[in-house]
Amino acid sequence: MSEQYFILAPAGSVLALLFAFYQAKKVLGFSEGNETMRRISGAVRKGAGAYLKRQYTGVSIFFALMFAALGLMSFAGFLTPFVPFAFISGGFFSGLSGFIGMKIATAANARTAQASSESLNKGLRVAFSSGSVMGFTVVGLGLLDLSIWFFLLKYVFYAGLAGNEAAQISKISAAMLTFGMGASSMALFARVGGGIFTKAADVGADLVGKVEAGIPEDDPRNPAVIADNVGDNVGDVAGMGADLYESYVGSIVATIALAVSAGYGFGGAAVPMVMAAVGTVASIIGTFFVRCGEKTDQKSLLMALRKGTYISSILIIAAAFPVIWFFLDCENYPQRIGVYAAVLSGLLAGVLIGFFTEYYTSDTYKPTRELSASSLTGPATIIIGGISLGMLSTLIPVIIVALSVLLSYFASGGGASFSQGLYGVGISAVGMLSTLGITLATDAYGPVADNAGGIAEMSHLPHEVRERTDALDSLGNTTAATGKGFAIGSAALTALALIVAYLDEIKIHKPDFKLDLSIVNPPVLIGLFVGTMLPFLFSSMTMRAVGRAAQSIVEEVRRQFRDIKGLMEGEAEADYAACVDICTKGAQKEMIAPALTGIISPIVVGLALGVNGVAGMLAGATATGFVLAVMMANSGGAWDNAKKHIEAGNFGGKGSDAHKAAVVGDTVGDPFKDTSGPSINILIKLLSMVSIVFAGLVLEFSFL
Amino acid sequence: MSEQYFILAPAGSVLALLFAFYQAKKVLGFSEGNETMRRISGAVRKGAGAYLKRQYTGVSIFFALMFAALGLMSFAGFLTPFVPFAFISGGFFSGLSGFIGMKIATAANARTAQASSESLNKGLRVAFSSGSVMGFTVVGLGLLDLSIWFFLLKYVFYAGLAGNEAAQISKISAAMLTFGMGASSMALFARVGGGIFTKAADVGADLVGKVEAGIPEDDPRNPAVIADNVGDNVGDVAGMGADLYESYVGSIVATIALAVSAGYGFGGAAVPMVMAAVGTVASIIGTFFVRCGEKTDQKSLLMALRKGTYISSILIIAAAFPVIWFFLDCENYPQRIGVYAAVLSGLLAGVLIGFFTEYYTSDTYKPTRELSASSLTGPATIIIGGISLGMLSTLIPVIIVALSVLLSYFASGGGASFSQGLYGVGISAVGMLSTLGITLATDAYGPVADNAGGIAEMSHLPHEVRERTDALDSLGNTTAATGKGFAIGSAALTALALIVAYLDEIKIHKPDFKLDLSIVNPPVLIGLFVGTMLPFLFSSMTMRAVGRAAQSIVEEVRRQFRDIKGLMEGEAEADYAACVDICTKGAQKEMIAPALTGIISPIVVGLALGVNGVAGMLAGATATGFVLAVMMANSGGAWDNAKKHIEAGNFGGKGSDAHKAAVVGDTVGDPFKDTSGPSINILIKLLSMVSIVFAGLVLEFSFL
Repeated sequence: MSEQYFILAPAGSVLALLFAFYQAKKVLGFSEGNETMRRISGAVRKGAGAYLKRQYTGVSIFFALMFAALGLMSFAGFLTPFVPFAFISGGFFSGLSGFIGMKIATAANARTAQASSESLNKGLRVAFSSGSVMGFTVVGLGLLDLSIWFFLLKYVFYAGLAGNEAAQISKISAAMLTFGMGASSMALFARVGGGIFTKAADVGADLVGKVEAGIPEDDPRNPAVIADNVGDNVGDVAGMGADLYESYVGSIVATIALAVSAGYGFGGAAVPMVMAAVGTVASIIGTFFVRCGEKTDQKSLLMALRKGTYISSILIIAAAFPVIWFFLDCENYPQRIGVYAAVLSGLLAGVLIGFFTEYYTSDTYKPTRELSASSLTGPATIIIGGISLGMLSTLIPVIIVALSVLLSYFASGGGASFSQGLYGVGISAVGMLSTLGITLATDAYGPVADNAGGIAEMSHLPHEVRERTDALDSLGNTTAATGKGFAIGSAALTALALIVAYLDEIKIHKPDFKLDLSIVNPPVLIGLFVGTMLPFLFSSMTMRAVGRAAQSIVEEVRRQFRDIKGLMEGEAEADYAACVDICTKGAQKEMIAPALTGIISPIVVGLALGVNGVAGMLAGATATGFVLAVMMANSGGAWDNAKKHIEAGNFGGKGSDAHKAAVVGDTVGDPFKDTSGPSINILIKLLSMVSIVFAGLVLEFSFL
Repeated sequence: MSEQYFILAPAGSVLALLFAFYQAKKVLGFSEGNETMRRISGAVRKGAGAYLKRQYTGVSIFFALMFAALGLMSFAGFLTPFVPFAFISGGFFSGLSGFIGMKIATAANARTAQASSESLNKGLRVAFSSGSVMGFTVVGLGLLDLSIWFFLLKYVFYAGLAGNEAAQISKISAAMLTFGMGASSMALFARVGGGIFTKAADVGADLVGKVEAGIPEDDPRNPAVIADNVGDNVGDVAGMGADLYESYVGSIVATIALAVSAGYGFGGAAVPMVMAAVGTVASIIGTFFVRCGEKTDQKSLLMALRKGTYISSILIIAAAFPVIWFFLDCENYPQRIGVYAAVLSGLLAGVLIGFFTEYYTSDTYKPTRELSASSLTGPATIIIGGISLGMLSTLIPVIIVALSVLLSYFASGGGASFSQGLYGVGISAVGMLSTLGITLATDAYGPVADNAGGIAEMSHLPHEVRERTDALDSLGNTTAATGKGFAIGSAALTALALIVAYLDEIKIHKPDFKLDLSIVNPPVLIGLFVGTMLPFLFSSMTMRAVGRAAQSIVEEVRRQFRDIKGLMEGEAEADYAACVDICTKGAQKEMIAPALTGIISPIVVGLALGVNGVAGMLAGATATGFVLAVMMANSGGAWDNAKKHIEAGNFGGKGSDAHKAAVVGDTVGDPFKDTSGPSINILIKLLSMVSIVFAGLVLEFSFL
């Protein structure tokens, strides 16, 4: 294979970034509407900016400390010297993705509200364009970081190995794997911190504003209302962006690492990178097909978005075949077709998981409608119903992932060569994520529409505008649910590929080390138990964090209602910044313990149980994390929509006892679906990444 | 080793059964109190009898079908000819244990109420004696079944192999393993059916009686009140008995099987059996120390029960050493001490898990008190709080099990011989369960005290009697919680031993079969995912079943309040039998699907993924099942006691908004702690048992 084709990756990156820039310009060209709208949007922007500034300051300290620690360890010879720098670069780009996504989202909210006052299609286009900025920034920066490191390592640091392809690529992939840890750490902080912020504000605003004071949602008299809108941006935009940045980069790097042991050489390494580049083009083309008429029903709107993702998928299906055929360095033709089948299975798995997420969480289907009906017998039954719905909903995604892994593995030659089979599994994750640009655009669109609805409400725009923003917002709930399913599915596949990359890493450190990964080997088994427990522990920590932060907000809102004269009468303005500040502080403080759990666990388990124990822990955490994340996301989504179903006039409608019960369900579901559930995705990848980086240390000092 | 020592096992069995008989006579010698008490107790007895009759009829059909299926398979050569008979005998004895336990519990309830009117100590003695009947029946019948098969196989069926010890014991243990499947199936039906019955009645009685009609708990006007009392017996007595019967027998048989590959011969097989026999004696001695004064505070009462279990534990600690020293057929003296250490670690793990269960669920400690306080901000916060408390509470039990397994494994020589290490793990499970006689007695005591309280209420006994029965009942909640922790811990250890026994079984079927149990082997990994999902699916099914059955009860109770004239005024009697009948029918219908899930999953996974996949599934289901069961039991227990804490006058007391929120938590917790959670224990053992029995079939027909 001619090496010049690697240039396709940076080319794809530049294309994606240019497209993101073009979309950003387009969004900024729209009007921000009237004075009130500008003021509200400005407040949200300011709050989000303040939050990110504080978050990045805090995280910088963490990164500086880690850089020093990793530096010391490289100095002592446990890590290659690139690790500290790779760590920083991964964290930086992951954080930058979130930052840019949030900047544009907070700029687009009032513009979406204003555009909706002209036509539904225009509103959709603005919100979706803003989502695209995020989607293509993530893809572009991911490919950029990958490319920079790849070229630096290949042509500068390891140029001396140019004659020995296998050795060179093995070194390159080992070094590149470590920057995933930086991305994961950043993603975890963003997701956990953002998740805590958004739900503390949401729960706090609801508990005092809606329940105690009896004022409607998004009412400007509620001091937590701006914090609530800020929360949508920092949690669902910045957090989600950092999360998927990490999956995207992680799956590509892991597959490159697997290409080495599969014996595919640089051709095998090129496939994921080129496919990502091709996927970027496919995604860009897809975005041009997203448009709608004036029908505000969910089906037409969903179809408008779906058209774009479907077209992108079809394009990548067509393009992946020649890419694999051309680059895959093997004589065995059926095997190339098999690797192609792996790509298809990954794409299909992503679509199917998304569909079943929708099935279990949308009120157009039976499960959520039944859940809605269970609110008639009170809060206890809707809680039990939601939990059991979430648990039941794990069956099909597990089967989908199982079939996808099996198919990818055996089609890619796993029967004859273990490593080639696993390369297929890695490729299927890359396939699933290849259209990330547009998938993430449809997902990041949600919070913008949500904010737009809030702004329309707060600035008293005409009825039909609210109707349109409501329709856009509802659609956002559905895309958020499918987006979550997609994020979980890709995280599981990426984590699986990373586990294997971890084992490769051990071989590099100690080629003669004898692994005993048998599931009945006690360290493996015990690692499995510990890994199984970690997602539960982690979820508990994040839920408790939300509870504590929400409590502070409740007290602040109560204080303002009490102390600010004329607030309830609409004569004085609430101190929005105080609530934003409390959420910010709370989120910063509370994100530390869960994040440290993710980083410390693999090291402690490694020192106590050895590398076999770590492998067991990773497998246990990945399997349980996947199942628990699906459960929490779907329970939460179903409760949310069950409540909306009642608000639409069913089972007594707003204000009925059934509605009150459904509100309880929705409140329980909030941390499930927006804090704990999505954070688990990152946890399982971070655990693998940390294990990989500290493999040398563990090999040296572990007890077993 | 002289073989005559095996006679100690049947001797222990006879002793246990005689002691159970003696205790039963003692209980029946007490007065049943006045006419009303006798009438109520009679109604409960009749309801429980009707339920068991129907359950055993239904289960008989299942057993007959399975007998035929297993018979056909033995005929075709996939199973040894003993399997169908062993299956039936395991099911029969497991069912008989539950039956006898329930007979005595329903005979003891009014007697406990009556005895409490004389003195607290007398009430405690009657209830505890009734619990002892159950405890020692389980132990006695378990040892009896084991002994019968052991002697039949050794001296009749495999007498021809007498010269070849290794071959003979290998055949014997393989045949004996299969009767665990009968016991597991029976236990699952009993636990799931009983759990559905009890919670449907409880929830139904509460929702209409307490919430809608506003009458107090245990009010005789509530048509579901007898069903509620029946439920305590069929769920917590018969179900728990069958569950622990299965753990007890399973751990002993698995350890015998492990003795073979460890090379310990009949001496190694004798250790678990003799230790069980010695444990029976220790338990009997312990029961004589259970007595209390007239102080109704929880601490004194708990101490009264604890004294008995502690003394039994000390006795077994003293006796286990000579047993191991004498029987263990190895020259290596330190290793015998190591196996002894394994016993100690098992005992200690049981005590510690019990203690931490109490810590997380009793309102004398911080977690439940904090949970109680979270009811002040409404039902949503107490639900989130309870779930995160349950999740957090999984950390320590996982570490306890991990350390116990590690210690047992390495102390017993796992560093040098894998099989000897695993034998140590099996022995630690046997150690944990050796004092089952008295542990189960303290546990089975609870429902009797609960029923006694109900009868005291319904028959309007004097205030101080209610105070005493309330104290006994409260104590029962604590012992139930620790009993659940114990049941879960022993189930996990037993299941681990069974996984290894499964692998031995495969070697017997196909000695040259090459297992690849590496955690990254795709079939293993996928099996792991499926296994991880199964406890979630299973819990969902059982929770939904409770919901449906409770719905029927709600409708029936509403109907009776509407149709029976004078019921609310206390002039007409409610149709109690109708509610019992509905619960019975509901439980029978609803227990089928979850039970079939447990039986079919290993076969389907085996056929699709092969034996490696089954091993992955078992490991995943055991780890996740353990964590999820702990979480559900502790969340449920904490909600229950948080409610009781408020009812004791804290945070506004009965009738306050905080109390209403706490009731929601308690209602959600009911199926958690009494249906889904405890059923998971049996699920994980049943999965292993079914895998073992069908290993030959899977080896023959699987795709992979």
